[in-house]
Amino acid sequence: MSRIAYFGPQGTFTEQAARRLASGEELIPAETIPAALAAVRSGAAGAACVPIENSVEGAVTATLDSLSEAEPLVAVAEVLLPVHFSVLTRPGTTEIRTVASHPHALAQVRHWVEANLPGAHPVATSSTAAAAVAVAEGEFDAAVTAPVAVEHYPLEVRATEVADVRDAKTRFLLVRAPGELPEPTGADRTSIVAAATNRTGALAELLTELAVRGINLTKLDARPTRNNFGEYRFFIDFEGHVAEPRIGDALAALRRRCRNVRFLGSHPRADNGTTEIEPGAANEDFTDAIDWVQSVRKGAQA
Amino acid sequence: MSRIAYFGPQGTFTEQAARRLASGEELIPAETIPAALAAVRSGAAGAACVPIENSVEGAVTATLDSLSEAEPLVAVAEVLLPVHFSVLTRPGTTEIRTVASHPHALAQVRHWVEANLPGAHPVATSSTAAAAVAVAEGEFDAAVTAPVAVEHYPLEVRATEVADVRDAKTRFLLVRAPGELPEPTGADRTSIVAAATNRTGALAELLTELAVRGINLTKLDARPTRNNFGEYRFFIDFEGHVAEPRIGDALAALRRRCRNVRFLGSHPRADNGTTEIEPGAANEDFTDAIDWVQSVRKGAQA
Repeated sequence: MSRIAYFGPQGTFTEQAARRLASGEELIPAETIPAALAAVRSGAAGAACVPIENSVEGAVTATLDSLSEAEPLVAVAEVLLPVHFSVLTRPGTTEIRTVASHPHALAQVRHWVEANLPGAHPVATSSTAAAAVAVAEGEFDAAVTAPVAVEHYPLEVRATEVADVRDAKTRFLLVRAPGELPEPTGADRTSIVAAATNRTGALAELLTELAVRGINLTKLDARPTRNNFGEYRFFIDFEGHVAEPRIGDALAALRRRCRNVRFLGSHPRADNGTTEIEPGAANEDFTDAIDWVQSVRKGAQA
Repeated sequence: MSRIAYFGPQGTFTEQAARRLASGEELIPAETIPAALAAVRSGAAGAACVPIENSVEGAVTATLDSLSEAEPLVAVAEVLLPVHFSVLTRPGTTEIRTVASHPHALAQVRHWVEANLPGAHPVATSSTAAAAVAVAEGEFDAAVTAPVAVEHYPLEVRATEVADVRDAKTRFLLVRAPGELPEPTGADRTSIVAAATNRTGALAELLTELAVRGINLTKLDARPTRNNFGEYRFFIDFEGHVAEPRIGDALAALRRRCRNVRFLGSHPRADNGTTEIEPGAANEDFTDAIDWVQSVRKGAQA
């Protein structure tokens, strides 16, 4: 059994995701996303489960920033969880002046809170479950949490399904130190982070390296490098697996073009998306083409 | 004198920015970024001042999302302000259990708070100045604010220059309803938001329309459309002014290519950046080329 660090404490959405991605493993809560990833880098955990993207609030920037710093880590699996929020209070609470939760959760229930708890102050905690702990301890009046949190803390449910947008989903990753990669399945996702050189057309050229190979982009996020205003790192997700010739060919091109490129993993997609491959961009096309060039070089073909 | 809504209350960084961008005008605080923009859309204010980007925390997503929704607004000016944070408390405060501020500010002082106020809870407020108000009212123990806030509230300075990253800057926009645009200066920025069609290469092609015209991208942010997971809007800033033939030519191409494109403004850059134009991509090159095509059509040239 290996130890899996997750962005905890118990009762967070990330714990639910970790149970799905690493069922039967020992789960160890970490207080922040960087701490969960640091546990893998230090060897204290064999893997970590962290949120990467939400359908309403967008990229989880703490995860992106942590993945681009320090020792490289690679994602080996992902899971999509529907997001449901409940509001929990201590039994007998009558007045709600503060509503605590993770900032991503607060952003997703803002309209509900304004309409139903007018005047209540949103309070940012390090996780949805940390909000439940703080409410249980009397520090704040209400917590916005995963529905499961009520099973872990002495609180009662005041409201359920309080998310402003129905059908919101969050995607979570299981990340490890570089090592054996998951097998390609035909419906995979590959992630990289790259610093394009700072000149006209650099990002267009980088994305064109994917486009000309028929590789479909699934996500692109820019994050400041924190050194100079106007310098960014690009987090790019696309369909395919690094083990495939077509993807390997694209990654080699990005490696040539970018000041800096880091592989963040290849793993099966959780969204049931299919990978459509254009004529001329299949793996056989790439291997046949290389074979042909070799024949030409030997004088065997022309 | 016109009325300028800003993301307030008094004592925020945005108030400082509004004083720089609209000196002498009547400034009206709004409680949130969407509220400041709504005041312009309803005609209650002639313009609004909002933050758009921070060198450490990246895009201000509330501003991006609000600019892409409801009635179009256009940015007519920008200002860059260095970010300095102070910690304010009520006089005589000994124990600090809660540290309140805007989430962007909390993220930028996280290491300082962990090192200097261990165990203190970060509490998200709607602005840095709202944190000062809440501390003055005894709701929380400490506020992370702009240094100027101490002049507005009965608080004392506990620490100054507490930002984790030195030399952080925030860029602010002055936005109006569409109307007369600022004159081109030769060092301008144009902003758009576009929804690329969802197929392989769509974003690469869109950015290539800028690159092939020698137009330098200065920022790109993806935000989820909130409808389907994996659908994004792209906020794109580039050098140049819509009044220039080369920029107009590029915008017309984007208009053809995108499901949806909205102009967000052309205005002078505040970063003293110069716009370098490649051979063949100057405004005269574009007008000469159009003249030549017209001559060819008339049979006057070939």
